[in-house]
Amino acid sequence: MEAIQSLSAMQVWSDRCHKDNQSIGFVPTMGYLHEGHLSLVRQAKAKSQKVVTSIFVNPLQFSPSEDLSQYPQDLRRDFSLLEKEGVDCVFVPNVKALYPQDFQSKVHVTELSKNLCGASRLGHFEGVATIVLKLFQIVNPTFSFLGEKDFQQIRVIEQMVQDFHLRTKIIRAPIVREPDGLAMSSRNKYLTADERERASILYKSLMQAKAQYQAGESSTSKIIDATRSLIQTVRPTKIDYIQICDANTLEDMLQVNKDSRLFLAVYFGHARLIDNSELI
Amino acid sequence: MEAIQSLSAMQVWSDRCHKDNQSIGFVPTMGYLHEGHLSLVRQAKAKSQKVVTSIFVNPLQFSPSEDLSQYPQDLRRDFSLLEKEGVDCVFVPNVKALYPQDFQSKVHVTELSKNLCGASRLGHFEGVATIVLKLFQIVNPTFSFLGEKDFQQIRVIEQMVQDFHLRTKIIRAPIVREPDGLAMSSRNKYLTADERERASILYKSLMQAKAQYQAGESSTSKIIDATRSLIQTVRPTKIDYIQICDANTLEDMLQVNKDSRLFLAVYFGHARLIDNSELI
Repeated sequence: MEAIQSLSAMQVWSDRCHKDNQSIGFVPTMGYLHEGHLSLVRQAKAKSQKVVTSIFVNPLQFSPSEDLSQYPQDLRRDFSLLEKEGVDCVFVPNVKALYPQDFQSKVHVTELSKNLCGASRLGHFEGVATIVLKLFQIVNPTFSFLGEKDFQQIRVIEQMVQDFHLRTKIIRAPIVREPDGLAMSSRNKYLTADERERASILYKSLMQAKAQYQAGESSTSKIIDATRSLIQTVRPTKIDYIQICDANTLEDMLQVNKDSRLFLAVYFGHARLIDNSELI
Repeated sequence: MEAIQSLSAMQVWSDRCHKDNQSIGFVPTMGYLHEGHLSLVRQAKAKSQKVVTSIFVNPLQFSPSEDLSQYPQDLRRDFSLLEKEGVDCVFVPNVKALYPQDFQSKVHVTELSKNLCGASRLGHFEGVATIVLKLFQIVNPTFSFLGEKDFQQIRVIEQMVQDFHLRTKIIRAPIVREPDGLAMSSRNKYLTADERERASILYKSLMQAKAQYQAGESSTSKIIDATRSLIQTVRPTKIDYIQICDANTLEDMLQVNKDSRLFLAVYFGHARLIDNSELI
């Protein structure tokens, strides 16, 4: 496995693959890898001739009040996990190379960034879209693999790819969960043992909502109320949002239908956890 | 010469060039071509194996009060001029293909878009950067040729290329002028015979400023005052701005130095004309 830091070396590596007609599967990450990331890597391996994983904690997508400085890191462990999976190249650019002093160009995907996490995390998706555009230009991937836990992120990136005519194809991958249903996330590390146990309510609440819809309930507000009631039984630190949105536009819906998705963001201690599910 | 309308056909055409190791020189235009555009085409021909010119009047860079609907067009004449220059491909995308209903992704080059035309034309450079990024992704040019009349546009695009790691190399080309010094522009068509004659003061005022600086004057305000006085002798409809800025950052300067550039935007009737010059 090659480890590349320099942007130009990464471009040269990618150009060589394309010259040799080898497809590149790309898995962008912020490191501190878990089974969710590794499942993306395995899907990339299965679909592409070369696999690149990037590890970069992107300051542009954190607001000053957020957890940039505490974001967990363990590069050595990440490298060893990626090596075991047979990744061809791990790209670990540094902050100053990606954001030199005079850096000033931003991407804004206006409509899809408004709701859900975009409403609570101002500028977050501008930071996400900007870094992802940059990484796509450097790595020039044939396929890019993104996990559905960050569903709004997927939609923002898919829209950017469409609007800017980018050549990569986005592949969505399902959420990977712990045995009790908690969605894998690097931020689960922030949870105390007690919080960790209570956090499994998120998955249970998604399953309850699904059962309600399948039993014939189509009122968004009724499903949301039941979801909130169930989550509140474990006394989370704060519920940021519980919303049912159209999976394509991410706009709120009054009536649930086959295109609906339930989205949650809930704090347990410092950890802001998100999860989502379709309801059919 | 091939004429291509479809975005995907243009991408296929470009991919074929790259596969054959042929460099692509790209000249993006809004049509109604003049000698300024043709000089860009000639430089593209000299430096690249294939030349693509795009013709697209980009609605995103016009504000509602501006001249989008009157912008002059003559596709037949444009095609014949480009054919004579030996252009390989003219790309004429249509508005709905580039801006479908759900289009929503924008590029903002924050600092360089603030001053000069960015201050008088709100959203203009966001429109410019966005369409140019889109065209670059579709045409995938090795070299892109831009004229210095739109100097701020060049800086915005150069910065975007740097910030997003785009693979094209921007080539700046000097302003092409009429015999009396007026910078070539499709908007010169708006001028009445009388306005056309008076508009030659812009070039004279640039030359006067240059002479002043070369004679030892280094006060920005004195050079600007003299420039304004000279322009006012021909009673323009309105002076939008006269500024001396750093050619790299486009920030206003108090003292003129070798990096200074004088920028003008002046209305004659409906026509908003711009021009600029270094002072050394």
